[in-house]
Amino acid sequence: MRISELSTHSGLPVASIKFYLREGLLAAGDLTSPNQASYSQEHVDRLRLVRALLEVGGLSVASARDVLAAIDSTSMPLQWVFGIAQHAIAGGLVAPATTGPDAPGATLVAEQIAARGWRIQPDNPGIAMAASVLDAYESMGYGSLNDTIGEYARAAEIVAEADLDAVAGAADRAGMAEVVVVGTVLGDTLFAGVRRMAQEHVSGRRYEGVPSEGIAPEIAVSPVPDAGASAAC
Amino acid sequence: MRISELSTHSGLPVASIKFYLREGLLAAGDLTSPNQASYSQEHVDRLRLVRALLEVGGLSVASARDVLAAIDSTSMPLQWVFGIAQHAIAGGLVAPATTGPDAPGATLVAEQIAARGWRIQPDNPGIAMAASVLDAYESMGYGSLNDTIGEYARAAEIVAEADLDAVAGAADRAGMAEVVVVGTVLGDTLFAGVRRMAQEHVSGRRYEGVPSEGIAPEIAVSPVPDAGASAAC
Repeated sequence: MRISELSTHSGLPVASIKFYLREGLLAAGDLTSPNQASYSQEHVDRLRLVRALLEVGGLSVASARDVLAAIDSTSMPLQWVFGIAQHAIAGGLVAPATTGPDAPGATLVAEQIAARGWRIQPDNPGIAMAASVLDAYESMGYGSLNDTIGEYARAAEIVAEADLDAVAGAADRAGMAEVVVVGTVLGDTLFAGVRRMAQEHVSGRRYEGVPSEGIAPEIAVSPVPDAGASAAC
Repeated sequence: MRISELSTHSGLPVASIKFYLREGLLAAGDLTSPNQASYSQEHVDRLRLVRALLEVGGLSVASARDVLAAIDSTSMPLQWVFGIAQHAIAGGLVAPATTGPDAPGATLVAEQIAARGWRIQPDNPGIAMAASVLDAYESMGYGSLNDTIGEYARAAEIVAEADLDAVAGAADRAGMAEVVVVGTVLGDTLFAGVRRMAQEHVSGRRYEGVPSEGIAPEIAVSPVPDAGASAAC
């Protein structure tokens, strides 16, 4: 297909495609004449991946090039490809505070990793993210999230298994890396949304008590009779 | 204490404190002379809350005023206060795409809410967040996150219980609402960090296989002998 058709199939303007070609994010087409190149379905697929990296993952062109090189290097273990993709998108999430390796947050994270037997590299971007949140929370005077982090880690294992199931559903290495990037970024927002729903549900169960009063049994000064007991009085 | 001491205790510049006083986010001090007011520990506490709302929660001054009013209205059920705080910070998280109530994502979310028996209001900000991610993912051609959302919801219940445990640890209504806001915002990043660690661990377990080859048993064309079997050959 010509570049105009590639534009139609990918939904991207010709100018964007030419930019990706110049930046080396998309392989050149086969020259059919000195001024015309032919593109294939592979180009359509690659464009979707490039777009996912740049628009959903928020990667820079240079980072996207690194991820693409990792995907294309078939001798590279798949797990390394995932790691490279994870590192590339890590910059997109702003950690709330900087923190040192000796800060309490880093220790808490290290303890958690050991407790759960997680085998991860010391440069996993999640370590700094989690440690900085723990330090920020404590430095604001809210106490320690010691108990919270353990439950978060337990929940994260469930989410990670689901994430890797989605990755395993992809057709090839490129597709898998694509799902790693898109899934990691979108998954953060998906989980944040589901978490807000669960919070309302759990908060309702704990604090609703009698709907008309809305006082939680735990914090009510006097015992609150339930609806059945009220009717009996 | 004088405003200069309030500044020292709160770590906020006098100019910021005066701004919060003008905007009605901080109650005026007791006048000790026509030009001098006295502030108490309550003011220090309120400043920490205001700061948490604006700096961590990313709330506008108007939204912060709404949340503070809800906290101060002791007749308002605590769960409503949580809801108001949740809504106020919802704007801080950018949903990747807008989506309608008839889009497949909204249906998937509604099914999930029903399946888990969650009692939540239809305006819970997490619903639109989750629905828009599901639609964005599917519209990019990655298929459905049908299976994923169920596991996310299961994990979110664990996280929400931990979140509400942290809220319950606060001393009073203001402290609880403060933990709701700070915990919701920081918790998103904390979970994102822990999720990245868990992803590496799970991905390693699934795809590492024989470390030197890095091919997952599931995707290897020929059976990969384990280390013990290799040694025996």
